[in-house]
Amino acid sequence: MTIIRTLAAAGVAAAAMPAGAQEARTSMEPPMTVSPALDRATRDTLLGEVWQDEQLSQRDRGLVTIAALVARNQTAGLDEYVGRALDAGVEPSEISETLYHLAYYAGWQNAMAAEPVVAEVFASRDIGADAMPAVDPSDMLPLDDEAEAQRQSNVQSQYGDVSQGVVNATEQLLFRDLWLRPALAARDRSMVTVAALIAGGHTEQITFHLGRAMDNGLTKPEASAMLHHLAFYAGWPNIFSAMPVAKDVFESRAN
Amino acid sequence: MTIIRTLAAAGVAAAAMPAGAQEARTSMEPPMTVSPALDRATRDTLLGEVWQDEQLSQRDRGLVTIAALVARNQTAGLDEYVGRALDAGVEPSEISETLYHLAYYAGWQNAMAAEPVVAEVFASRDIGADAMPAVDPSDMLPLDDEAEAQRQSNVQSQYGDVSQGVVNATEQLLFRDLWLRPALAARDRSMVTVAALIAGGHTEQITFHLGRAMDNGLTKPEASAMLHHLAFYAGWPNIFSAMPVAKDVFESRAN
Amino acid sequence: MTIIRTLAAAGVAAAAMPAGAQEARTSMEPPMTVSPALDRATRDTLLGEVWQDEQLSQRDRGLVTIAALVARNQTAGLDEYVGRALDAGVEPSEISETLYHLAYYAGWQNAMAAEPVVAEVFASRDIGADAMPAVDPSDMLPLDDEAEAQRQSNVQSQYGDVSQGVVNATEQLLFRDLWLRPALAARDRSMVTVAALIAGGHTEQITFHLGRAMDNGLTKPEASAMLHHLAFYAGWPNIFSAMPVAKDVFESRAN
Repeated sequence: MTIIRTLAAAGVAAAAMPAGAQEARTSMEPPMTVSPALDRATRDTLLGEVWQDEQLSQRDRGLVTIAALVARNQTAGLDEYVGRALDAGVEPSEISETLYHLAYYAGWQNAMAAEPVVAEVFASRDIGADAMPAVDPSDMLPLDDEAEAQRQSNVQSQYGDVSQGVVNATEQLLFRDLWLRPALAARDRSMVTVAALIAGGHTEQITFHLGRAMDNGLTKPEASAMLHHLAFYAGWPNIFSAMPVAKDVFESRAN
Repeated sequence: MTIIRTLAAAGVAAAAMPAGAQEARTSMEPPMTVSPALDRATRDTLLGEVWQDEQLSQRDRGLVTIAALVARNQTAGLDEYVGRALDAGVEPSEISETLYHLAYYAGWQNAMAAEPVVAEVFASRDIGADAMPAVDPSDMLPLDDEAEAQRQSNVQSQYGDVSQGVVNATEQLLFRDLWLRPALAARDRSMVTVAALIAGGHTEQITFHLGRAMDNGLTKPEASAMLHHLAFYAGWPNIFSAMPVAKDVFESRAN
Repeated sequence: MTIIRTLAAAGVAAAAMPAGAQEARTSMEPPMTVSPALDRATRDTLLGEVWQDEQLSQRDRGLVTIAALVARNQTAGLDEYVGRALDAGVEPSEISETLYHLAYYAGWQNAMAAEPVVAEVFASRDIGADAMPAVDPSDMLPLDDEAEAQRQSNVQSQYGDVSQGVVNATEQLLFRDLWLRPALAARDRSMVTVAALIAGGHTEQITFHLGRAMDNGLTKPEASAMLHHLAFYAGWPNIFSAMPVAKDVFESRAN
């Protein structure tokens, strides 16, 4: 809704908008523009320059933006960004899986609040239940048993006495199930995780997951562009808290 | 709303739902399930296993979940969780007092935004104003004068020059009033405080309040189960930021 | 809405409320008061004592509160606080510019979600587009070239290898454009920045911006009063994380 309003104010033809938005535009007066500067920056800087920067694909920007909004519990504008993601080639199943993933990494109700918004967009595009990932996929991704045993052993020795429930759930629900689900490629799953961590200000977890993302194929130029992209959606303070952590990750991998 | 949808999708009989929800279910098409995996995990893992784990009572889980959602400013699903809390034996007055407490510990508008949602649930169950805690209770809990004088003296010497207004308000509004109100037992008040701190990512304050919670009767198994419970509602990153702090608190009390 | 309800419950005459609110009050039953203690504290402590404390003007409190709510993505009650800000003398153009500023410092969708709420308030007061700041003002504030060159050089050498996009955007969009826009005085722009940082828990950025705010004319008593004010809107944990940072800033400037 919020992007559409901006585009409309900027003179984008109604025909270029999704059907629901057109209807909304013709059935009510255009709302007042509270900040013409914000409208112009949305159109020219954010959607114009940042989204068009090819260092990170529009498809990736779609997933990253959805992750940022869900992590920040922001449903305003989420419908438009889900539409942009779909237009840029993100599969509906990838959006579905991103929500499920973020239930664990951003909080259950963040995913639950986003679900009806996404359902609306899917319905308006005739995307049906058959396009959603299976509950129990038959083709789970392979597990690196040794690495996982090592990770689990570290966490068990560190936190087994603190909360065995957390330790068990982390192993069984996350690393032996969620991360192996094939509806999101490992690189994309890592990318939305890092985006959610940056957007939520969880700097302490960025080191592990940014390293994992790069192991999974996210390039340094893509990670750099993601920081630039997220400066807008997560706000500058979150990005400047993430920058020193990213710097350490980049430097340690260069050596 | 979000839990109900999930339960309905999972085939729970409409008769088991609150009246308002039944109506909603019969007057509109069941919405599309965007993530069948999320629905299944909500039903089987979260409501099925985690909520049924007896290490923390369902009554406590009700209060802890309300605290987490209010701390995260999440009104989506709050109505259902208030209903679950009431069903599990939480008193309406305890929910009222939790909101008031969280105005101070999570932000004023977090409580204000939650209030109308809770009011709806109370109204649907014929819970009236007479069930709410008094503005000025006549039976305030006893104050440990010496401990409070020590706390205040520490804060005064540390922060009196920074903001006397904060120092005074902390003493007069929080420790000589809010914490003494009898509508929440000291243990429960500490429990919702710790839940709000974990859910809001306020790791710096967890040491003081988790220690206080255990002084007030929260057991280590309960605190461990609360971390497990909150992993879902606050997201894994918040829990893994809280774990080292909880570890220190547990270890320092064991010695 | 939430303030109005409280005032109404407290017996404030409907005539004292904005027109829209009166209508709402007469067309429906007064909702139940879930927490009479919260209502009383809102009226007597927060609006009564804190807002009336002259150490920080009501005008500044209006801007600070808007910044806190937008930074926390809280649209509930935002309309009332925008009204209070206008009543206290904040210019509509200053509110517009605060939203634009917070798009960068709190996250784009925080500003986008606030915009329609502010638009409603402006419309109800016949505040039109002509009162909004120009997209490209002709009278930009002067830039301290040397200080900016130094800042940019520091950031370039530290983070140029991490994300040149972030480094460039920080210089071009923020320090050579946003901060020079005349619709907010430098002191006010710094004040809403610091308020947003405190309200969002971004302690790492407070040192730089609180120092800058004081360079720009925010006094220590005003900063102290802002901490007191924000304890309520950001919650006590955020304030107690900000206090040691503020203490360091105050002490380093006293020497």
